[in-house]
Amino acid sequence: MSQFAAKRLAVVGLGLIGGSLAKALRETGCVEHIRAYNRSAQSLQFALQQGIIDQACSSIGQLCEGLEAGDVLVLGVPVLAAGPVLEQLHPAVEAGVTITDVGSTKSWLVAEAERVFGEAPSNLVPAHPIAGSEQYGVEASRADLFRAHRVILTPHANCGASHLERVRELWLACGAGIDEMTPERHDEVLGATSHLPHVLAYILVDLLCSMEQRGEVLRYAAGGFRDFTRIASSDPTMWRDIMIANREAISSRIDEYEQHLDRLKAALEDESAEAIQEIFERAQATREAFLKQSEQSS
Amino acid sequence: MSQFAAKRLAVVGLGLIGGSLAKALRETGCVEHIRAYNRSAQSLQFALQQGIIDQACSSIGQLCEGLEAGDVLVLGVPVLAAGPVLEQLHPAVEAGVTITDVGSTKSWLVAEAERVFGEAPSNLVPAHPIAGSEQYGVEASRADLFRAHRVILTPHANCGASHLERVRELWLACGAGIDEMTPERHDEVLGATSHLPHVLAYILVDLLCSMEQRGEVLRYAAGGFRDFTRIASSDPTMWRDIMIANREAISSRIDEYEQHLDRLKAALEDESAEAIQEIFERAQATREAFLKQSEQSS
Repeated sequence: MSQFAAKRLAVVGLGLIGGSLAKALRETGCVEHIRAYNRSAQSLQFALQQGIIDQACSSIGQLCEGLEAGDVLVLGVPVLAAGPVLEQLHPAVEAGVTITDVGSTKSWLVAEAERVFGEAPSNLVPAHPIAGSEQYGVEASRADLFRAHRVILTPHANCGASHLERVRELWLACGAGIDEMTPERHDEVLGATSHLPHVLAYILVDLLCSMEQRGEVLRYAAGGFRDFTRIASSDPTMWRDIMIANREAISSRIDEYEQHLDRLKAALEDESAEAIQEIFERAQATREAFLKQSEQSS
Repeated sequence: MSQFAAKRLAVVGLGLIGGSLAKALRETGCVEHIRAYNRSAQSLQFALQQGIIDQACSSIGQLCEGLEAGDVLVLGVPVLAAGPVLEQLHPAVEAGVTITDVGSTKSWLVAEAERVFGEAPSNLVPAHPIAGSEQYGVEASRADLFRAHRVILTPHANCGASHLERVRELWLACGAGIDEMTPERHDEVLGATSHLPHVLAYILVDLLCSMEQRGEVLRYAAGGFRDFTRIASSDPTMWRDIMIANREAISSRIDEYEQHLDRLKAALEDESAEAIQEIFERAQATREAFLKQSEQSS
């Protein structure tokens, strides 16, 4: 069981993840007061009406008013917006407040914190909950979004142990499992398992929609296509940011992907049924192993 | 309502599709006797015990014994096996029996029929039910697999009108909707909507399983990855056959895909957030339109 308890939770950027975190912590009863600031006032009003938050703030300044040591401030904004938000937090938040985020790339956040603060501050704990959906916005938020999901904490060199522990407890309270790795390692691994698949799905739909037979093509797209491209319904702005922030790792993965694709193309040109089957069988076996592993761990 | 009724249904290759077709027609009561031949005797015994078929045949010769005009013979074998099966059917089946198939590529079948029969026979009606699953084998078959799904009929130049009509009625009886196009057009369209996505999913898993951090990578693969790669759990033999049989269309689609991927790569290299967002927004909008369209048609 988690020991997490806090007087105040403050959320900048109340989307699917920020909203779900507020709901999850509200449900546990371990936070007394939840406040949020969001660029779109509509999301804030919705959250207020639904009782997801107690206070809708009209500025980051107001959000930071009266925050004390022990309170937690969560960045729920798209990855590239984190830097500008940190600039505003820098003069406004006292050092005892734990600052954490939920972004899908981590080295970028640390670099931005170094730019803004001189060095990454000890109260900043970069984190990434591996949960989500192609849906987005606070309207789609769910209290159980993180239950039985992994959250990766990526402490930087200057990260304070007590702040790290606090963020760990926060996520445990939401029912998540915790892992830890460096920001660089995180970006490598997620570049392969999450960012690359999103690229591939977006590009497939991009190709189909450029085809002359576009209408016919979509008419005969079946369930496999629907599942395959589900992630291409994800928020374009959020994913644009991830692309830019994790540019190098993603570029490397795309290059490697094309090399593997070219190997299949060569096998096709040679009509080498054996080589094709070998690739497919290895992939199928790997995926089955993945499914077995995720059943065991859930 | 469908007018379909037949004395005998004969199935060569009792997998997911052949088995589901037998179950669906059995449920409607419009077929008196269902017989099947399959390379694996185990599948036949299973189907016999489950009452999916009335007779398990030990050879294609036995399967064809006593078939009469008005009976229907269905090829449920992998695409590349259809030619060799047609060679055995050629001397054994009388011309009044309607022969149809369920394969995912159509030009190949017509070419094989021309090779075996001299010209594609009038009683051969190529068909492709756009339904399936990453599961396979008769054990996974379901009577409702085709309900509210499209079946594409791809008549060749010599196709007999009465046989075409018969196959149309057969699929209507299973609850499917019917479309018609040329074999070539079918292979173009399905190359984009089905074959290419399978390639992309297999190759993604192939890449991940070749990575040094393979274990870690799979550990952090989340729901998006699971959906994206579902089709990489499909039968490798079946898909190897589809690759070979629709080689040219698939190669072209892969080339086009790489061109679109390269455009994204260039935008990444230029750090052009705008170009990236444009691609993602177009893809997202296209997929949403696809979802709306498929809701309306189902």
